Amino acid sequence: MPDLSRLLTPRSVVIVGASPTPGALGNSVLRNLERHGYAGDIHLINPKRDTIDGRPCLQSIDDLPDGVDTAVLAIPGPAVLGAVQALARRNVGAAIIFSAGFAEGGEEGLAAQAEVARIAAEYGMVVEGPNCLGLVNYAAGVPLTFVEAPVLDLTHKPSVGIVSQSGAMAVVLGATLMAKDLGITASVSTGNEAASGVEDYVEHLLGDPQTLAIAMIVEQFRQPAHFLKLADRARAAGKPIVLLHPGTSSAARESAATHTGAMAGDWQLMKAKVERAGVVLVDSLEALGDVIDIAVRAKPVRRGGTAVLTESGAFKALTLDLAEAIGLDLPAMAGETAAAMRAAVPDFIPVSNPMDLTAQALVDPDLYRRTLIPLLADDAYAALVFGIIQTDAATSARKFPPIIDAVRALAPDKPVIFAGLDDGAPVPGEYIAGLRAIGVPYFPSPDRAFRALGHLLRHAARDFTAAEAAPVTLDLPGGVIPEYRAKELLAPVGIPFPAGGFAADVAEAQAIASRVGYPVAIKAQAAALSHKSDAGGVILNIADDDALAEAWERLFANVAAYDASIALDGAQVEAMGKRGVELIVGARNDPEWGPVILAGFGGVTAELLHDVRLLAVDLTPDAIVAELRALKQGALFDGYRGSPALDVEAVAVLIAGLGRVLAGSPTIREIDLNPVVVYPKGEGVVALDALILADAE
Amino acid sequence: MPDLSRLLTPRSVVIVGASPTPGALGNSVLRNLERHGYAGDIHLINPKRDTIDGRPCLQSIDDLPDGVDTAVLAIPGPAVLGAVQALARRNVGAAIIFSAGFAEGGEEGLAAQAEVARIAAEYGMVVEGPNCLGLVNYAAGVPLTFVEAPVLDLTHKPSVGIVSQSGAMAVVLGATLMAKDLGITASVSTGNEAASGVEDYVEHLLGDPQTLAIAMIVEQFRQPAHFLKLADRARAAGKPIVLLHPGTSSAARESAATHTGAMAGDWQLMKAKVERAGVVLVDSLEALGDVIDIAVRAKPVRRGGTAVLTESGAFKALTLDLAEAIGLDLPAMAGETAAAMRAAVPDFIPVSNPMDLTAQALVDPDLYRRTLIPLLADDAYAALVFGIIQTDAATSARKFPPIIDAVRALAPDKPVIFAGLDDGAPVPGEYIAGLRAIGVPYFPSPDRAFRALGHLLRHAARDFTAAEAAPVTLDLPGGVIPEYRAKELLAPVGIPFPAGGFAADVAEAQAIASRVGYPVAIKAQAAALSHKSDAGGVILNIADDDALAEAWERLFANVAAYDASIALDGAQVEAMGKRGVELIVGARNDPEWGPVILAGFGGVTAELLHDVRLLAVDLTPDAIVAELRALKQGALFDGYRGSPALDVEAVAVLIAGLGRVLAGSPTIREIDLNPVVVYPKGEGVVALDALILADAE
Repeated sequence: MPDLSRLLTPRSVVIVGASPTPGALGNSVLRNLERHGYAGDIHLINPKRDTIDGRPCLQSIDDLPDGVDTAVLAIPGPAVLGAVQALARRNVGAAIIFSAGFAEGGEEGLAAQAEVARIAAEYGMVVEGPNCLGLVNYAAGVPLTFVEAPVLDLTHKPSVGIVSQSGAMAVVLGATLMAKDLGITASVSTGNEAASGVEDYVEHLLGDPQTLAIAMIVEQFRQPAHFLKLADRARAAGKPIVLLHPGTSSAARESAATHTGAMAGDWQLMKAKVERAGVVLVDSLEALGDVIDIAVRAKPVRRGGTAVLTESGAFKALTLDLAEAIGLDLPAMAGETAAAMRAAVPDFIPVSNPMDLTAQALVDPDLYRRTLIPLLADDAYAALVFGIIQTDAATSARKFPPIIDAVRALAPDKPVIFAGLDDGAPVPGEYIAGLRAIGVPYFPSPDRAFRALGHLLRHAARDFTAAEAAPVTLDLPGGVIPEYRAKELLAPVGIPFPAGGFAADVAEAQAIASRVGYPVAIKAQAAALSHKSDAGGVILNIADDDALAEAWERLFANVAAYDASIALDGAQVEAMGKRGVELIVGARNDPEWGPVILAGFGGVTAELLHDVRLLAVDLTPDAIVAELRALKQGALFDGYRGSPALDVEAVAVLIAGLGRVLAGSPTIREIDLNPVVVYPKGEGVVALDALILADAE
Repeated sequence: MPDLSRLLTPRSVVIVGASPTPGALGNSVLRNLERHGYAGDIHLINPKRDTIDGRPCLQSIDDLPDGVDTAVLAIPGPAVLGAVQALARRNVGAAIIFSAGFAEGGEEGLAAQAEVARIAAEYGMVVEGPNCLGLVNYAAGVPLTFVEAPVLDLTHKPSVGIVSQSGAMAVVLGATLMAKDLGITASVSTGNEAASGVEDYVEHLLGDPQTLAIAMIVEQFRQPAHFLKLADRARAAGKPIVLLHPGTSSAARESAATHTGAMAGDWQLMKAKVERAGVVLVDSLEALGDVIDIAVRAKPVRRGGTAVLTESGAFKALTLDLAEAIGLDLPAMAGETAAAMRAAVPDFIPVSNPMDLTAQALVDPDLYRRTLIPLLADDAYAALVFGIIQTDAATSARKFPPIIDAVRALAPDKPVIFAGLDDGAPVPGEYIAGLRAIGVPYFPSPDRAFRALGHLLRHAARDFTAAEAAPVTLDLPGGVIPEYRAKELLAPVGIPFPAGGFAADVAEAQAIASRVGYPVAIKAQAAALSHKSDAGGVILNIADDDALAEAWERLFANVAAYDASIALDGAQVEAMGKRGVELIVGARNDPEWGPVILAGFGGVTAELLHDVRLLAVDLTPDAIVAELRALKQGALFDGYRGSPALDVEAVAVLIAGLGRVLAGSPTIREIDLNPVVVYPKGEGVVALDALILADAE
């Protein structure tokens, strides 16, 4: 990793393209440095000026003293490459390139960007951009951007880092977090990432104790494996990474390519991998700010349900609807908690979750405290949400103080969140500040509060346990490994296949058939034959030795007619299995993101509905079962409308075996077992086919 | 309909339970009347006081002058019934009952509420509540509630009516709409609706020219048929009704029962019916306010796509993702529009939708106007959204004025919406007011803007055309009509069934079989036999006359063994059909909501995924086809992965026929045709079964 400290906390800065003209980039950068009272040396370069604002100007980069820490290039794109070369000669530690027109702007730009990267590597220079808005290290008072950067006092403020490829989004998110009265330690936009990427800045911020969480906006990870390692570290350190990553739509992926030169990636794969590594993935700018607010202001969210205290029966119903829609668990109030709640409220208020306190707290403000006590004590609730009608300043004055006092007095060890029901109601700022000061995030409307909390609760509910099973290393040639060889390799790992084996001639085939019992199927085998069925290379339901002899001839004739150049090794002979429910199970070793397993239901319907899930290779069998049950048609595993429950545990064992192979055999590109047939509980699972595609060692 | 004018614009008011104590309900009502400068007579009743605030008090209701318009009952529940009786004797026109503990509070409360309703009916008294927060007629300056009601100046403000069963939700929504600088003509909470319901207030507000739209929060419609008629009228009058109705979750439906005494209804049926009648149904409080804002402030939303002008490539990608997720159409910029856009922006800005204007408008503020012109002129765009980075007051000052000037100058005939990207950014209020003054709704964050617009665009895209096909009146006995009779009745309407007919004995069966051709199926027929298959009452694949004779005996024996009390009429003899794709099609005449047709894919998977839609009976065949295609597996109709395209038009004809029957035969409760088998395009559809359940005339 490049050392980013010369970029992020420079002792000296040079503005290449310094300008006396208000609004000019080079002028805005200087204004920011002055506003923040930057204490290091500031060098200005402008060949047409002797001074700017009384500061001396140098004619050219070559006039710089050796070893300035960071250069800000406020110059047109065509001048960038020459400037970077000159900066390298003067041993400048880092360069920030605002200009666009590089990788996102066609071949010429791509070449220029590659040259910037080459120089950076040769001279050990850190480069931010091109096509970025620079950075602001708010904690150190170092603003290196032309966007007006306010001076932030981070004292007593929970603070986060912003790392975004898009400069505009970094600015936008900064404004939103400031409005939530959160601190920002540093905000970095990486643009086209010629040399340094989001991963490098995340690594730097993970080492900063003042940064409690990292908010990211990324269109494409250029160092996925590196990022996954960092995400693991962040999770271990209890420092949440919250990520917004467009690309669920193909249109968005195409757009990203024209925007920051990002290539279309596989969004679902990214999602599976980063969530497994502990990243909280959100789907909107709103959610990004909201989740960050809860993550750094409130107590940590642990696994469990949510209790809701509100003041309206209709809102209770709306909350039940929303909770079902977003998968938020609202456990019923039970046992001691129910009894304590019963005792805490008047008879006419039913005990339920959400609990409708009616307007009773207006005449009995201690109601909030009394109902909080049992809910905070009950481990069934990992979080508590107040859904309160604010209305106006007078009403607020009767509700906020008792809530604030109660929370302060009870010092909860779980998140407590305040959601106003009436978005836009004129609530005095002192109350909002009062809530925030005691660790209670304030939401002006309820939906966003529940959605943000839902993200964190789902994250807390995730099982990050890695399976302890040892990786399996297969000795593989490169290229396509045909079915019979793949089955021989995978069977010892515990992947179940139909009884049978490979036959080089009819006699061998008949011997196998007599061993496994008729009827049998035969399937033509050759590495070059990738579509057996299309070639007439599969013959089913063969009844006896004579039929097998006839079928054998026919099989070879079919394949020869299909493609005379294919020489068959022989055929796989297998017992015909009984019918079951068809699944699809495949594995892939993505060159960028690494190994992943795809599992789902087979058939046209499942395909139409994209009813598949991507699984990490190190999931425990229990976690695999949970994932399978989470399929849209997952209820089929438990039996549905009279159909028997299926042997989901056997499927999990098969998938875990595949995971061990993938983890131990990095040359594997793909394994395809489709279809996989699962039988009723206790009767197991069988993979009907097997195909391995591997790189040469 | 009761005349609500004495309630909503009373010339005289009596407060039963008037009080000098600040915070007491009877005192708060008086404070509201005084604050609004209510010009009518105010009578106070309090047996313990001679005067309150210098106003004389009456000892009892009996002391009232005859014919006071409206009474506000600020008294405990147990005293309500006696007071209502006394008010009726004094010919009071209307009563507002705040107290709870009626239908939602058990049998005793239910009886008391029924008595209130009886008195109301007998004396022609309008009753609001019980269990409500009263009403505020802001337009007339009549606040009849104990919740502090601000005085609103509706001049130059687009104004809406609020009708809510929940009083708290009416207050909450009022605060939100006021924060959006919208006017409120009247806000009414109906509570338990002992006598008057939401429908009555909607009818009243439809007649009020100042009310441009009606926002509703309803847990259960008690007069569904009446409401549907009103919704039709509202749509014809161009007065949007926007409805929030909890109940998507079963938990919410149960909650409603304990809250305002509403019974659990069928939410999906409600949705199908109200949307067909032109209501805009939303799913959150936020969306309710947001949709109302666009609906009454901007130009009417017509059918079409959306154009987006923004300043960030990453936001463009996020918008593409969101648009796909919520079904918002973002048509590409094409033809003349694309050329005009190309000419309007610098070369480095690609023409696309969303269009990323970058930060260029900061140096070229006329850019907004130049890009607006072609987009406003292009009919492909029904709406335009600005997605703007606000950041701070200084940045706002460079963006809002040129946008406001451009929109004002161009006077668009389609909605233009402003969405800030940076939620919470400190935007000066004058800019927000400036946008609103020229009909541009302001959203502080983008997601809610797109979601709200999406609701209105989907509504505008709806086809409200009623099919012109004449209703079909069947002459039906009451009770279960068995398959053979149902098929005889429905076949002439154009519902296709397998070739065959009813046979009373073997000879008749053989005659039918020889006519339709073997193989055939026979199915036992009797009104009392509702589960033929369970009784062994269906025998398939009968090959010839002899087999038919044998099967006939067996069929009768099977049914006799299953239930000796069932006397078969005979059996339906039908040709065996070829296999196709199974659909489910049923029809129902709901006692509350009226007729509806359910259609979807058959099979376990479809059931698991709830892949069905509810259709109005008067849809045109084209609209039916559109609905079928909107099924989750709707792509199957067009052929998928090699399967043939299906005869979706024939399915539409079948459904339209069912609709004509349902529309013309109101005694029908249910028609069940399952399964319905659809064949490849041009090969039609066949309903394999038929069962009608009808009421006696």
